[in-house]
Amino acid sequence: MQDTIRKIAPLKPEFFDKAQKRLDSLTKPLGSLGRLEELARQLVAITENTMPVIDKKVVFTFAGDHGVAGEGVSAYPKEVTPQMVLNFLRGGAGINVLARHAGADVVVVDIGVDYDFGDVTGLVSKKVVNGTKNMHKGPAMTKDEAQRCIQVGIDLASEYAQKGYRLFGTGDMGIGNTTPSSAIASIMTGKPVAAVTGRGTGISDESLQRKIGIIEESIALNKPSPADALDVLAKVGGAEIGGIAGLILGAAANRIPVVIDGFISTAGAIIAYGLEPITRDYMIAGHCSVEIGHRAMLEKMGLSPVMDLNLRLGEGTGAAIAMTVVDAALKIYKEMATFGEAGVSDDIIN
Amino acid sequence: MQDTIRKIAPLKPEFFDKAQKRLDSLTKPLGSLGRLEELARQLVAITENTMPVIDKKVVFTFAGDHGVAGEGVSAYPKEVTPQMVLNFLRGGAGINVLARHAGADVVVVDIGVDYDFGDVTGLVSKKVVNGTKNMHKGPAMTKDEAQRCIQVGIDLASEYAQKGYRLFGTGDMGIGNTTPSSAIASIMTGKPVAAVTGRGTGISDESLQRKIGIIEESIALNKPSPADALDVLAKVGGAEIGGIAGLILGAAANRIPVVIDGFISTAGAIIAYGLEPITRDYMIAGHCSVEIGHRAMLEKMGLSPVMDLNLRLGEGTGAAIAMTVVDAALKIYKEMATFGEAGVSDDIIN
Repeated sequence: MQDTIRKIAPLKPEFFDKAQKRLDSLTKPLGSLGRLEELARQLVAITENTMPVIDKKVVFTFAGDHGVAGEGVSAYPKEVTPQMVLNFLRGGAGINVLARHAGADVVVVDIGVDYDFGDVTGLVSKKVVNGTKNMHKGPAMTKDEAQRCIQVGIDLASEYAQKGYRLFGTGDMGIGNTTPSSAIASIMTGKPVAAVTGRGTGISDESLQRKIGIIEESIALNKPSPADALDVLAKVGGAEIGGIAGLILGAAANRIPVVIDGFISTAGAIIAYGLEPITRDYMIAGHCSVEIGHRAMLEKMGLSPVMDLNLRLGEGTGAAIAMTVVDAALKIYKEMATFGEAGVSDDIIN
Repeated sequence: MQDTIRKIAPLKPEFFDKAQKRLDSLTKPLGSLGRLEELARQLVAITENTMPVIDKKVVFTFAGDHGVAGEGVSAYPKEVTPQMVLNFLRGGAGINVLARHAGADVVVVDIGVDYDFGDVTGLVSKKVVNGTKNMHKGPAMTKDEAQRCIQVGIDLASEYAQKGYRLFGTGDMGIGNTTPSSAIASIMTGKPVAAVTGRGTGISDESLQRKIGIIEESIALNKPSPADALDVLAKVGGAEIGGIAGLILGAAANRIPVVIDGFISTAGAIIAYGLEPITRDYMIAGHCSVEIGHRAMLEKMGLSPVMDLNLRLGEGTGAAIAMTVVDAALKIYKEMATFGEAGVSDDIIN
């Protein structure tokens, strides 16, 4: 992990300038394509290529279970985690549909599901834990387990970078995982638990109050240190959240832009950010989740979401759909005519 | 026009219910795909088909000039309008890039450009005026001209419906056209001119104050009646805005969903809405423009934009990129596995 972090370098202003120069030569009023122009500049700076090629894309959906799910914090039983993993492998889930739409592959990673899949075609088996322990009774993982989860993500990033993939997306599956994500959001942003805890897949008012109480008590019991992101991940995080954090570290080390999905993925992102703040430059916030803690984490990192579609599914769905906007941004940058090519006046009279 | 308006029928609740039933059977928490689910329901209700097919898409970019542009309300000279029309026809503009991205064709319509294109391949020549008259000195168009602009849009909608297109987008090109659009926004929403007037392609503070004054004086001079949308279009509107209004009326009459681009297109949409409020059910607000008057008009019609990318280019660019989200919504609805198909538990324990 430390080797990977050492490889992560800040983006160079000269590449933003080069991209800006081209954007300003295109047949449109200066800056009129807003966010698409921002994304284009970021892609040029990340790849250090003034004509970036981003053809192969992949969304990594990390799956893991959570001991705390036994506390009744979710609308679904934990058996749904492996059922949905199998649904991903058969291509029937939301992430499959939206990744196909975006022209992205889906890599499904068992990093901590409490179920023995045996030998299932297509599943990447990197199990670190059989579900985390219940954080309401003690640490969810040991620090060694947390570090191994991060390493799974780092290794996948390197593997897919070598395979020629040039855009990554993050995703998650894990019944109960908005609970550790809210715990991480509270610790890493300094906001009260109640301000960053939502209804997940759809729980009642009463269950929401119980969920908030359980998170508060888990934090009080485990005392994670906000200055030590690995400690936070271990004590109140989850295996899939660690995998996502590692993927982001690996993406940054390989100079690959990474589209962050919603609340759970952003919990992973803020762990990566805690380990190395420069990772932020390599992140694209895919969308703004319905989960109230999401925006707090994005603001802490200074990220602004590309889409706002009231999604709260996870799996990487928001990342996949945002990939289509990243594509659009790159096409604008590469394919639009310049004023010179088009014979259009770029006089500004005011 | 009245014949077309008579054909526009409200959407039937039974189709929303049928779409909802399918959405609730898909392997995801209820409602967790937010806006994508809303769009899917709307597409089913518009097409009255529980498995809608939307393969052929087209963005109509209506171009026109504006007499008021001579008042120094724009950052660009009006010569840019025909130059950009030619750029559209060569495929080098933002709309060409984003329409290709969305798999949509682009139809470029000269409805009121103050330039003689002669016989240019690909241009749809439906010129009603050689630019509007200066609304600061009198009505921009006669009521007959305004009606003919609307008819151009209606006819194009019918023609492309017959050609098998199943999703329309609106777009505009016309130097100076944020000025009539702000006038329309003020009249149709009842808000003060200053609250709905922005910088267009990028004017200075001083020019913005002049622009606001010119709009206020034009409204005082022409006295358009808010209750008569055709009167508003004629007195302080524009040819391309009328074409867009007509296209929307025609889309609704043909039961075709229409994605509205930004500020100028929404000025056209609110004219259509003024003529027949049911048209609103057939509209999809593509994005939220940087222009401050845009949101006021969307709110008046009860529309919420699909994207918010800080675009302010027009041409149909925001409609084109939003078409990719409409596509995604339809794929989710049609391609996701149901709980039954996937063997996933849909138990809700809370």
